[in-house]
Amino acid sequence: MPVSPIVVFFDFSSPYSYLAVSQIEAIAARHLRDIEWVPVLLGPVFEKTGARPLVEQPLKGDYARIDIPRSARFYRVPYHHPDPFPIATVQAARVLIGLQQEDSRHAVPWLHACFGAYFVHNRNIAELPVLEAIAAEIGLSAGSVARYTADPAIKARLRANVERALAAGMCGAPFIVIDEQPFWGVDRLPQVEAWLDRGGF
Amino acid sequence: MPVSPIVVFFDFSSPYSYLAVSQIEAIAARHLRDIEWVPVLLGPVFEKTGARPLVEQPLKGDYARIDIPRSARFYRVPYHHPDPFPIATVQAARVLIGLQQEDSRHAVPWLHACFGAYFVHNRNIAELPVLEAIAAEIGLSAGSVARYTADPAIKARLRANVERALAAGMCGAPFIVIDEQPFWGVDRLPQVEAWLDRGGF
Repeated sequence: MPVSPIVVFFDFSSPYSYLAVSQIEAIAARHLRDIEWVPVLLGPVFEKTGARPLVEQPLKGDYARIDIPRSARFYRVPYHHPDPFPIATVQAARVLIGLQQEDSRHAVPWLHACFGAYFVHNRNIAELPVLEAIAAEIGLSAGSVARYTADPAIKARLRANVERALAAGMCGAPFIVIDEQPFWGVDRLPQVEAWLDRGGF
Repeated sequence: MPVSPIVVFFDFSSPYSYLAVSQIEAIAARHLRDIEWVPVLLGPVFEKTGARPLVEQPLKGDYARIDIPRSARFYRVPYHHPDPFPIATVQAARVLIGLQQEDSRHAVPWLHACFGAYFVHNRNIAELPVLEAIAAEIGLSAGSVARYTADPAIKARLRANVERALAAGMCGAPFIVIDEQPFWGVDRLPQVEAWLDRGGF
């Protein structure tokens, strides 16, 4: 029986998703698992949970402003808190879906390039010209961003991703599912690793 | 210069506090730190953050019902989800404060006995007869529970604990402060340990 992939639901505007993405490939490789990247939008998730973005909440926002950069130092990955934050990531997500469907060897480079652009280099990936520049940097053919972001089938697929995430119980980002077990947050990576090591616990 | 203690703010009704308490003494001992236990009430914290108890939130509640027992298995500590949950823990907290002030050798045994009673043995520690039974089990003198829970100075001290927690930025439980660095959640224990190891990062 083939081993199921590690399913990673994330939003490009989520710092904890960025941190998890920086770690999860090594974890997957150690356990011979593939990763299925599922870009979603946190907006509809927050609508369902009744939550607001973390940094807008009293006390939790202050804590997040300490915890996010400190967590980056803990994982020894670069981090620069972007401004504006948070942003709409619908276009970046659509391009990723387009690449996954039509040009899959560029999908993971796009994912890393977008996260790095936003959380390391403070480039506003909500803006199409920024996405077009990133596309050029990783060698996408000209017009890819315009085409993917306007494609009705890709738009529908992103909506379907959100529905799938909610059906899986996604209550925040990142949301990682392994063999139907849900793990919410970069801070669950030790449990993810233990789950893979022990085959559940 | 004396080393500052690890300050642990917690609520007796918080499962993640129970899990953190099961781990933090070993961490403190490895780093030659004392622990200052600060019982608080999550109610006023939630009022300030606008949050509801986790298990009452859409999606997050469902996730918590999976995550809490699984986290207990991850840490290899016993856990039985109590009913009713959550409960008012003001009396258990007052007794702990009374012991800290007048009978300190019984304070930590009381702390562990209450957490174990509620999260392992499903005893409702909101009820005074249950607290009196626990008191007898750990050898407190008769009348201690009645005395501590009625003492106006102890009531004031619990309110002061809550104010101190909010001033420290407490946004959930457990909330751990080391050398003025705040760490929220049992899932921050790896960062707590790294912070102690490296003297900050």
